[in-house]
Amino acid sequence: MKEIILGIDPGFGRVGWGVIEKEKGDWKCVAYGCIETPMTDKFVDRLADLHRQLKLLIKKYHPTRVAVEDLFFFKNLKTAIKVGQARGVILLTAVENKLPVDEFTPLQVKQAMTGYGRAEKCQMQRLVGMLLGLKEKIKSDDAADALAVALCAGQSLWVKKIL
Amino acid sequence: MKEIILGIDPGFGRVGWGVIEKEKGDWKCVAYGCIETPMTDKFVDRLADLHRQLKLLIKKYHPTRVAVEDLFFFKNLKTAIKVGQARGVILLTAVENKLPVDEFTPLQVKQAMTGYGRAEKCQMQRLVGMLLGLKEKIKSDDAADALAVALCAGQSLWVKKIL
Repeated sequence: MKEIILGIDPGFGRVGWGVIEKEKGDWKCVAYGCIETPMTDKFVDRLADLHRQLKLLIKKYHPTRVAVEDLFFFKNLKTAIKVGQARGVILLTAVENKLPVDEFTPLQVKQAMTGYGRAEKCQMQRLVGMLLGLKEKIKSDDAADALAVALCAGQSLWVKKIL
Repeated sequence: MKEIILGIDPGFGRVGWGVIEKEKGDWKCVAYGCIETPMTDKFVDRLADLHRQLKLLIKKYHPTRVAVEDLFFFKNLKTAIKVGQARGVILLTAVENKLPVDEFTPLQVKQAMTGYGRAEKCQMQRLVGMLLGLKEKIKSDDAADALAVALCAGQSLWVKKIL
């Protein structure tokens, strides 16, 4: 079966996503984007909207697994809890669709991409684009992060297979 | 239509719940309990389990609205994010079932119960039991908190009606 990975960068206002699939031994980018929910909507409705849009992505791209970035650093607890709630919805959507979930910290993603953990955001984005053979610059930071976490999951799948 | 409120005290290992309904002008306790998910399960599976058990409660007790305690204080960010994820699943379950959601901070709940915000946990529990005409001591702290947030929602409904 062809491996298709949906990578997700959690947020509560903006959730980056990216789909990659393996083609002739290399990971290719299928699609990427960013789910935005209206700031004017109630928080619970934004969660429901996120759930609905994620289900549509799963229906459209048929991922075989989902990779989600772990949450670690926040300016304040209030933001952490808000993003946590969105992440709960993201994980639930994956497990409801019987998709295995891989979770990676931002450091793990950076290390998988670069071999060390200190790459700048713009370097990471260039690298993700190069690894996926993208000609254009990835327009959204959140989508680039999502593609990076998908690639990290892809790499870890490969490592598991050969070990 | 009879108002039935499902109150929820969010957590990731233990989620307290309590159902109250209005009968002859007073709120009565219908049922209460605590959803516990096995610590040995993967976190995503525990979220899915919570979702499933909440759906069963909604199916069984037909609440007309859901009241959820807000998250405010945590020992550390990791716990906050974990409980946040569970809370996201709780809110989504409510909105998926087209139930209006009321959110209250622990201080709002205490103020609604006592008129001031400094009641001790055991005082609050006694008060909740008295207000609901319960003969027994509520066995679970989490369930008592859930009944308190449900009562707070009930009181705020009443205030909205008379204003």
